[in-house]
Amino acid sequence: MPKPSLPQGTRDFPATVVRKRNHIFSVIRTVFERYGFEPLETPAMENLETLMGKYGDEGDKLIFKILNNGLNNPEKEEKARAGFEQILSGKNSADVTERALKYDLTIPFARYVAMNHNKLTFPFRRYQLQPVWRADKPQHGRYREFTQCDADVVGSNSLINEIELANIYHEVFIELGLKEYELRINSRKILAALAEFCGGADKIIDITVAIDKLDKIGLEKVNLELANKGLTESQITTIEKYLNIDGSNEEKLALLKNLFGDSITAAGGIDDLSYVAEQAKNTHIIIDLTLARGLNYYTGIIFEAKPPKEVKIGSIGGGGRYDDLTGLFEVPGIPGVGISFGVDRIYDVLENLNLFPANLEVSTKALFFNMGKQEASFAFNVMQQLRQQGVSCEMYHEEIKIAKQFTYAERKDIPYAIIIGSREMAENNCQVKNLSTGQQQTVALSELAAIFNN
Amino acid sequence: MPKPSLPQGTRDFPATVVRKRNHIFSVIRTVFERYGFEPLETPAMENLETLMGKYGDEGDKLIFKILNNGLNNPEKEEKARAGFEQILSGKNSADVTERALKYDLTIPFARYVAMNHNKLTFPFRRYQLQPVWRADKPQHGRYREFTQCDADVVGSNSLINEIELANIYHEVFIELGLKEYELRINSRKILAALAEFCGGADKIIDITVAIDKLDKIGLEKVNLELANKGLTESQITTIEKYLNIDGSNEEKLALLKNLFGDSITAAGGIDDLSYVAEQAKNTHIIIDLTLARGLNYYTGIIFEAKPPKEVKIGSIGGGGRYDDLTGLFEVPGIPGVGISFGVDRIYDVLENLNLFPANLEVSTKALFFNMGKQEASFAFNVMQQLRQQGVSCEMYHEEIKIAKQFTYAERKDIPYAIIIGSREMAENNCQVKNLSTGQQQTVALSELAAIFNN
Repeated sequence: MPKPSLPQGTRDFPATVVRKRNHIFSVIRTVFERYGFEPLETPAMENLETLMGKYGDEGDKLIFKILNNGLNNPEKEEKARAGFEQILSGKNSADVTERALKYDLTIPFARYVAMNHNKLTFPFRRYQLQPVWRADKPQHGRYREFTQCDADVVGSNSLINEIELANIYHEVFIELGLKEYELRINSRKILAALAEFCGGADKIIDITVAIDKLDKIGLEKVNLELANKGLTESQITTIEKYLNIDGSNEEKLALLKNLFGDSITAAGGIDDLSYVAEQAKNTHIIIDLTLARGLNYYTGIIFEAKPPKEVKIGSIGGGGRYDDLTGLFEVPGIPGVGISFGVDRIYDVLENLNLFPANLEVSTKALFFNMGKQEASFAFNVMQQLRQQGVSCEMYHEEIKIAKQFTYAERKDIPYAIIIGSREMAENNCQVKNLSTGQQQTVALSELAAIFNN
Repeated sequence: MPKPSLPQGTRDFPATVVRKRNHIFSVIRTVFERYGFEPLETPAMENLETLMGKYGDEGDKLIFKILNNGLNNPEKEEKARAGFEQILSGKNSADVTERALKYDLTIPFARYVAMNHNKLTFPFRRYQLQPVWRADKPQHGRYREFTQCDADVVGSNSLINEIELANIYHEVFIELGLKEYELRINSRKILAALAEFCGGADKIIDITVAIDKLDKIGLEKVNLELANKGLTESQITTIEKYLNIDGSNEEKLALLKNLFGDSITAAGGIDDLSYVAEQAKNTHIIIDLTLARGLNYYTGIIFEAKPPKEVKIGSIGGGGRYDDLTGLFEVPGIPGVGISFGVDRIYDVLENLNLFPANLEVSTKALFFNMGKQEASFAFNVMQQLRQQGVSCEMYHEEIKIAKQFTYAERKDIPYAIIIGSREMAENNCQVKNLSTGQQQTVALSELAAIFNN
């Protein structure tokens, strides 16, 4: 068989990476719990019909579908063959595939709430920290299996939630050491007001999509795109004026009021932004009117978190308010607001800025040398006592030359070697060698644990 | 669209279940780390060829295969159609499916070691705690997505590993409260010796498979199965004599020696069992000669862990020694030994015996009541200080009747309500109501944290 390999866009995580990822997860989870969010886990696979049609045509194509089992069955063969023709023509067929891997955490969450809404207490706050799968073209920093990390409050229209979510971003990033992170917010109501001003409410998607690209393609190309969508020169000038609003949060709000005059839609957005920016002023909140976010289901405040400017990595988190989580599953009337953390990007940022704590790296603290059958049996009991006191340790698995045992300890970055030969057995002590300083000392067995607990 | 549902054999885990599962994972992980095992995570999907042919014909059928994306492509249509005909005839085709969900943790681990053996330090100790997927018929206690939890040492023939793994079982089960668990061991060398005695070495699989069913079908049917496989009456009598060996570990070993006389194969197995049982005598280790375990790759000591007898649930863990982890991937010469924990069954056992710690259940410790815009803004700051001290709390999201806010706290089992009205704001204190006793007291804001940190 050919050399074993990994599917494109997937990764193995060895110990050092698992530990660093767990550090990020643990900080996020602790903050979520502190804010009263409860964990939820949903299966990797969902019924295909739960997922299809929720992510737009492009999204639908990126869903990993699972082949039905038992297709090798003469009775079902004809149906399966017909189903496969459907698939070849770009449709779906339950005769070939009924299930798929989840594409994000939002739709499975909506499915869960729709199935359980009679049992849940609202407002319902859940967090979810699980892998998702997308058949995207793999490239640097984009994987086919990656972890999402979401918190949502549903069943509430209160802006208190937005303020809490801003504080969650703040606490997580500060605890991770990202002192200079930025939290940018805008309101979809402002964008709606802008659309009302420029060509009517039905232009909001065109305008949002174009503004969303500002960072990547620049103002000129945004204007071109807007012109292509049929906006007039004067409308584009208004949008340009809007995009050029600058200053402190207060100054931006004042200029907004000026621009939109007595628009009721705009006033709602301005009130929201003003309230959230004021109440969450201890976070790094910045009103950013160029923030649009691509997703169409947002209706109120939208968030985007950015790493410190010195790192050239885009957004490390985002979210926003939506009016209707579960309407797609025929349970209407459940509004909410949610945020997510981009775990893989946060990982890259922390690596880049050297912000992972040093103590994550080492697991085994001591290697007991194997000095022969009897000595090893004696040392094993000493080791078990040390483990009982919470010290991770190992014994070298066979009696070989001491030099080789040292090599093993060094390759594994084990900080201490503990040697118990026949003399040490007789004297109830051991030799402890610090492998980074080279210092060796004789330590009574009763004192051994103290070395590790300082 | 129809009511949303979950795929058969999969589960959502709400907060109480996640917390209980995490309790189990956390105990296991802590013990693994104490023994110097390092975490590894592999992707959910593997290349189909990595998995196929590794689990026998029955296993192959239960692998969930992922449909290739982009099948709606006229250029590839013919190939895909031909590939699908292959699948209908029970074969595989990379033109339709190149990837599959992992079926266990062992083969992905072997694939990882084969890919990285030049970089790893041997003996390599890894643990892995991840979901796997099998298209089994769902039934009580059997799921299509479930979590496996494995620890293996590879690159070592030393029995020290078996002794450590026995101790790991012991520490995990004791820490989980399963005081009366049993750890049964046997050796494949003994079963090999039995086969040599009864019809030749090539009968070992037939004999192992039959003995493995003893628990379920009883001795008579085992004998019948052996007869059907062509074993003679006298051979079956020998096997029956073997299966009837009973007594303490020492007595069983003595009777074994008697039965097998000077068989070298048997002597090797007896030495191994005797050494491991003696060195791990502080664990609940029992030599069980009827233990066979179905998997053919085991070659030495085999393990099976059982819950306390009062619970009618089968095995909660198993494992054994194998000669060759990565030979299938053309990297020969890597022997090892591993164990796994049956997490779903352990969950059922702990639930059954009421052994989950009580403090897992509650997340939010206090609900701040919403007494109006100004009061809520004041209370929000008080709440933030409490959170900074590690107390999980929430504020009710809107100003409604107090009775409704109490209802929310009760439904969510939140132990304390904290009420700050205009008088409390003026006096810098708050009302704290213990919702289980009904007691209410006035507490200075500076003293508030103390209530939760006792």
